[in-house]
Amino acid sequence: MAENTVDPAAKTPVTLLGLGAMGAALARAWLAAGHPLTVWNRTPARAEPLAALGATVAATAAEAIAAGRLVVVCLLDDDSVAEALDGVDLAGRDVVNLVTSTPSQARARAAWVRGRGARYLDGGIMAVPPMIGVPVAGPYVFYSGSPGLFAEHRDTLAVPAGTTWVGEDPGFAALYDVALLSAMYGMFAGVAHAFALIGEEEVAPTELAPLLSSWLTAMAGSVAKTAERLESGDYTGGVVSALAMQVAGTPTFLRTAEEQGVSAELLEPYFRLMRRRLAEGGGEEDLVGVVDLLRR
Amino acid sequence: MAENTVDPAAKTPVTLLGLGAMGAALARAWLAAGHPLTVWNRTPARAEPLAALGATVAATAAEAIAAGRLVVVCLLDDDSVAEALDGVDLAGRDVVNLVTSTPSQARARAAWVRGRGARYLDGGIMAVPPMIGVPVAGPYVFYSGSPGLFAEHRDTLAVPAGTTWVGEDPGFAALYDVALLSAMYGMFAGVAHAFALIGEEEVAPTELAPLLSSWLTAMAGSVAKTAERLESGDYTGGVVSALAMQVAGTPTFLRTAEEQGVSAELLEPYFRLMRRRLAEGGGEEDLVGVVDLLRR
Repeated sequence: MAENTVDPAAKTPVTLLGLGAMGAALARAWLAAGHPLTVWNRTPARAEPLAALGATVAATAAEAIAAGRLVVVCLLDDDSVAEALDGVDLAGRDVVNLVTSTPSQARARAAWVRGRGARYLDGGIMAVPPMIGVPVAGPYVFYSGSPGLFAEHRDTLAVPAGTTWVGEDPGFAALYDVALLSAMYGMFAGVAHAFALIGEEEVAPTELAPLLSSWLTAMAGSVAKTAERLESGDYTGGVVSALAMQVAGTPTFLRTAEEQGVSAELLEPYFRLMRRRLAEGGGEEDLVGVVDLLRR
Repeated sequence: MAENTVDPAAKTPVTLLGLGAMGAALARAWLAAGHPLTVWNRTPARAEPLAALGATVAATAAEAIAAGRLVVVCLLDDDSVAEALDGVDLAGRDVVNLVTSTPSQARARAAWVRGRGARYLDGGIMAVPPMIGVPVAGPYVFYSGSPGLFAEHRDTLAVPAGTTWVGEDPGFAALYDVALLSAMYGMFAGVAHAFALIGEEEVAPTELAPLLSSWLTAMAGSVAKTAERLESGDYTGGVVSALAMQVAGTPTFLRTAEEQGVSAELLEPYFRLMRRRLAEGGGEEDLVGVVDLLRR
């Protein structure tokens, strides 16, 4: 590879634990950029194609971790991390944990790693494996934890995907990750309902798609206003579409679903919360009061 | 007003029934553009500010409809339309119905209006009153029904908001309207969940907002691919994040909600459908199979 004419000694060595789809994609990105890479995977066969690309394959997690200071963990889940690092000397290591976890799992893992003399950075990956290492804007990783670790290794971490720092609390990367992905599933639920509505009609999904996509993009702009209201506590100033009026419109949505033979199960929970907020006196508000109802 | 130096005779006269918030906004837009306007509202007091701006106030719906060929209806609901037009001579009129309705209500109303010798166009307004008549891209109305009516009055209809033609079926405007707004409520549900998650944390909503908004905008781009899959029936080719893997990730979302003290009621229905599709053998698909589950 032409890229390998760069002196590898100039690039930070990386140790990577875990070679699932995401781990393998990360590995390829670092190898392509000329970083010396040591890999370990519970199933050794997954390492073979990477060895062919120049990776050093360690027989154990301990051996991989001994190979360098920067240790990136991309295993299945938090239990796998505990198992792989059990009894391994982490003193002086910089552990970057990309395993999907909850905020409290990340905080507990941070304390556990720090207690063994290592710095800890948690990452929440906002990408799927095919996006990794592709030179396009978009995929990125939320990072939180040790600011020193992040500052020192940011350039190396930026090789496979963009980096977005969200604070010293090691739980924040997971919190942001889960928040954004949860919101995405809400949007996907709405999109599924919309496509189901046109199912039996003479409307092609590809006719609806650009209008739906543009509308959702426009409405995503309302997130900023929602955030301002939550911060100020002012739920009623400058409301352009009051909750009472929106609740009055919901029977049309439910009736349309029924007419079209579509289950309204994905819409009903939100409409129920809208009605509850209205019943509690929030008719002049916009929709932000629903956030408070979720927190009881 | 400087705009009124334009010869009003050159502009198509408009009759408008209904002066709620939306009707009044439409009225102001047509008056500002120099269209002769005749208005009627069940509660006459709502017409007074418009009379001061030059509107002719009719005492009855029949009188308003007699005043001109183009009749725009912006009443509360379909029942109000039936009541207001009951016994009124519609022969030769062009009726544009902007009342919120289901597709089948719109189809029935179209047949009823046509049966009385008028052309019919249905509209679904993708805007709230403050957006009407504001010279910015964004607010628009879906139109479906008589192509002749639409072609003849498109310029007049375009005064208060953009026009998007969606076909001759008079139910399509309502169908597109409800589909887009339903999807929007799904997205809002996801956004509410995301903000609820950070509620007790040292994360300001305005810190999360730009990241959330960008992420949703990026993910709105996936709508095009979903539409292609629905049309082709190929749910598995080129899948970047298989259903099985996504289902495996859902416990982290539910556990995070629980840890953060947030009800998962807005996420659970979609996750339940994801699991159901997986159980039925859709593990290698992306999420599009959920659309089919809604239609049983």
